Amino acid sequence: MELIIGTKKWSTWSLRPWLALKKTGAPFQETLIQLREVGFTEEIARHSPSGKVPALKDGELLLWDSLAICEYLAEKFPAAKLWPEDAAARALGRAAAAEMHSGFASLRGEFPMDLTLKTQLDPTEATAGDIRRIVRLWSDLRGRFSAKGPYLLGEWSIADAFYAPVATRFRSYGVKLSDYGDAGAAGAYCEALLNEPAFKEWEAAALKE
Amino acid sequence: MELIIGTKKWSTWSLRPWLALKKTGAPFQETLIQLREVGFTEEIARHSPSGKVPALKDGELLLWDSLAICEYLAEKFPAAKLWPEDAAARALGRAAAAEMHSGFASLRGEFPMDLTLKTQLDPTEATAGDIRRIVRLWSDLRGRFSAKGPYLLGEWSIADAFYAPVATRFRSYGVKLSDYGDAGAAGAYCEALLNEPAFKEWEAAALKE
Repeated sequence: MELIIGTKKWSTWSLRPWLALKKTGAPFQETLIQLREVGFTEEIARHSPSGKVPALKDGELLLWDSLAICEYLAEKFPAAKLWPEDAAARALGRAAAAEMHSGFASLRGEFPMDLTLKTQLDPTEATAGDIRRIVRLWSDLRGRFSAKGPYLLGEWSIADAFYAPVATRFRSYGVKLSDYGDAGAAGAYCEALLNEPAFKEWEAAALKE
Repeated sequence: MELIIGTKKWSTWSLRPWLALKKTGAPFQETLIQLREVGFTEEIARHSPSGKVPALKDGELLLWDSLAICEYLAEKFPAAKLWPEDAAARALGRAAAAEMHSGFASLRGEFPMDLTLKTQLDPTEATAGDIRRIVRLWSDLRGRFSAKGPYLLGEWSIADAFYAPVATRFRSYGVKLSDYGDAGAAGAYCEALLNEPAFKEWEAAALKE
């Protein structure tokens, strides 16, 4: 397998399937395209029909979307349990991941991921609304699954891959979750994401870019 | 099961899981919220934690994202084959559905779904780029799966649920796909989506709203 990704400090969409692939333990080749450098769009287009990273090549199969790659890995490596075995938990995890996949446009535009950045910014009202929604979502799921582990559904899952970049944004832009309705569970989950070993490995590589 | 949806002529996100649910043949209650009427956001918030339609209730389980609902139905009703049995075909279908789920922002903003509308508009360059990408995607997948049936992966799948609203946009705004690289396969697929029985049922209801 070959995973084509973008600059690690910036590319949230690349980070997600990379984390899932790491969790499978399977060997893979990583092809890194430096974004925002001359010719990078042509370079991506050589690999990905959508013109975007990430893309996964597995033999003849080429997949060009982060969520579809994660689902493919979940099916190919069932022992890695990238989704929980319980159908309802899995459905809730998919709803959480999909909400991130299509939503939170204001947060994403206003607070882009930059793993080298540490600042303090006040969000606009639209971004504040996104943050409040994320705090509610995290708090709700952590309330249901806290007995099973520190991640969104207890044990680590694809839903965590989808929210790891969000945790980095909250850290980079100095977002204090208690200002957005967090009674503690969302902040603790954010810390769990930032301290998860595969994420730390990505982060260390990003800081050397 | 109860599916909470928005105004049928406008709500692309509601149409998708509704089609998938129809394909299962399972009975369900449809709860329709008229969008853009006084109090509709509060009405949605009573049902859906994300504040958006659609949402699916199945006993204690509440799911609030269109793609997650479709995946849940695919698992709950395996005989309906909402995804193909072949793993590679299923992965490609997920990549196509997910690309729609997160992308094509220009097309979506500029040519919103309105099943009562028939006009002729020239798209901006960004929207033209979205249309060209969709034509390439459809043509590529139809080229691979045409022997198996008229839909994106041959037989009807969740990927078709995701592109049905796109077909209505092309019709409503007078988009001639041959102007965007179509050699015929994309146009034929568009017709197949618009003539599919479950879609026709939704459309008939929409025109009575």
